[in-house]
Amino acid sequence: MTEVYVLGHNHPDTDAIGSAMSLSYLLNEIYNFKAIPVISQKPDIETRYVLDYFKIPTPAVVRTVANKQIILVDHNEIAQSLADFKNSEVLAIIDHHKLEIETNKPIYLLSEPVGATATIIYFKYKELGISIPAKIAGLMLSAIISDTLLLKGPTTTEKDCVAYQDLADISGVADVDRYGTEMLKAGAVINNNTPEDFINGDVKEYFIQGKRIRIAQVYVTDMAPVLEKITDIKNEMNKHISKNYCDLFMFVMTDILKINSMIVVLGDERAIVEQAFSTKSAHDMCYQPGVVSRKKQIIPLLIKAFLAK
Amino acid sequence: MTEVYVLGHNHPDTDAIGSAMSLSYLLNEIYNFKAIPVISQKPDIETRYVLDYFKIPTPAVVRTVANKQIILVDHNEIAQSLADFKNSEVLAIIDHHKLEIETNKPIYLLSEPVGATATIIYFKYKELGISIPAKIAGLMLSAIISDTLLLKGPTTTEKDCVAYQDLADISGVADVDRYGTEMLKAGAVINNNTPEDFINGDVKEYFIQGKRIRIAQVYVTDMAPVLEKITDIKNEMNKHISKNYCDLFMFVMTDILKINSMIVVLGDERAIVEQAFSTKSAHDMCYQPGVVSRKKQIIPLLIKAFLAK
Repeated sequence: MTEVYVLGHNHPDTDAIGSAMSLSYLLNEIYNFKAIPVISQKPDIETRYVLDYFKIPTPAVVRTVANKQIILVDHNEIAQSLADFKNSEVLAIIDHHKLEIETNKPIYLLSEPVGATATIIYFKYKELGISIPAKIAGLMLSAIISDTLLLKGPTTTEKDCVAYQDLADISGVADVDRYGTEMLKAGAVINNNTPEDFINGDVKEYFIQGKRIRIAQVYVTDMAPVLEKITDIKNEMNKHISKNYCDLFMFVMTDILKINSMIVVLGDERAIVEQAFSTKSAHDMCYQPGVVSRKKQIIPLLIKAFLAK
Repeated sequence: MTEVYVLGHNHPDTDAIGSAMSLSYLLNEIYNFKAIPVISQKPDIETRYVLDYFKIPTPAVVRTVANKQIILVDHNEIAQSLADFKNSEVLAIIDHHKLEIETNKPIYLLSEPVGATATIIYFKYKELGISIPAKIAGLMLSAIISDTLLLKGPTTTEKDCVAYQDLADISGVADVDRYGTEMLKAGAVINNNTPEDFINGDVKEYFIQGKRIRIAQVYVTDMAPVLEKITDIKNEMNKHISKNYCDLFMFVMTDILKINSMIVVLGDERAIVEQAFSTKSAHDMCYQPGVVSRKKQIIPLLIKAFLAK
């Protein structure tokens, strides 16, 4: 039987992994090819918590998708996928990020500006009348909780709320609010993280107007333990910059309970951040109340500022 | 009330116009903004035939979409839209072509590899439970007939056939096969066309590996009247090329009844066509049985050939 990889983005989070697994299940219910959820790196602590909670096996980690037929979930930009993505055949994409995609033939692509890719997949289950197993529902629920910060984040839409409610029922989780908080806190445990872990963990790369932008993010319930290590973190960021790896490096510490962020900004293009946020960043740090989303609250402002240069 | 333009591609065909009008109707049924179907040029003869047949008013022709909120149908590439597209806010895209799109925030985009954009819109009506008025059904039916050449073209899918059947019933057209043939023939009437009309009528531009490719297409039921004027047509194409407007110019004469094409190939990059089709084009002409679709049968081969260079 033909195998099709269903791949989430690099540095996979709960939505990337949850979407890959739940879409694979859906595809295997309706098509006669074998959809296999894959990831390019191991799950992070939050996703580990989710997989353990629902007793779901970890998807396979792959280093290459060359010559494979693939379906992308939760990303569409080549900068966020496996490097040999261009040597594979992309059959379809389901995503909720900004678009930067070029294909040489028509493909299936569904992109919606909702909180989580899992929300889009949930509505595909509904549309196609496929029933959702409890474990898969738990996984999709967790993906929505993760990406919307328990429906409190700025990317949350009505559709996320509908999916959340229904998936909560199907999953059989007794106290979803409690489960979600525990899950987010599990992901926000950072005691043993090194400065390298912080800047290489949940990191995404963007190319804007020819500039290479790197944005690492860490979710915390208390910023103090990270701020304590901030000098070492800056040193690591500067090492990365001095090797010419990027023109702008942002490290975003997000308090998932208070819904705000402290952002460290380094690199030749750091002045753009002051423009983007209309702020003056003292000592390379800037505090942004209400900001928790790279996709919705940081990247669009950076693009606008670069275009206005 | 907020106005949103629903725009088809430049040199609009029946699918571009039919999709803009049918999607606008659908949006106005469910949202409280005012969706207005617009086109960047007047309808061609085939679409004129359709609009007259169903007694549907012609959508407004606009020269600019600057500072407007817009929804794109039947295209996504900037090269095929109004030049000031970049100064508008693209809210959504529904299309069935290859993708070349970059946005600075997440948007709604639904792309499916089906024969007509109208097919995708038909299934949106079904999904949302909106009933389709007879005239709108006739328009969507005509769009599918046009893009799939009465379901005989190579881009035709199962979904197009389903949509076609249902829309035929709703439209009230007594003999759809006869209607479709008459409609295609109406569009294929070329008696009064000048060489300029042929190469500027249904023309699309593509950028592949930095090269500017122009492909004009004309649908005929008999190639003779066009071949008679071929020297003048080549002269017009060469005029265009010598002004540095493009690196490759293809003029595709497609017989919609016999399902084949004769292609004139001119420009500095013309050798690529021999590679793409594994053919030797004598006197800048090449005959391609079975080839009728730029999107599915010409562009992917060109891209592959350029990448292999």
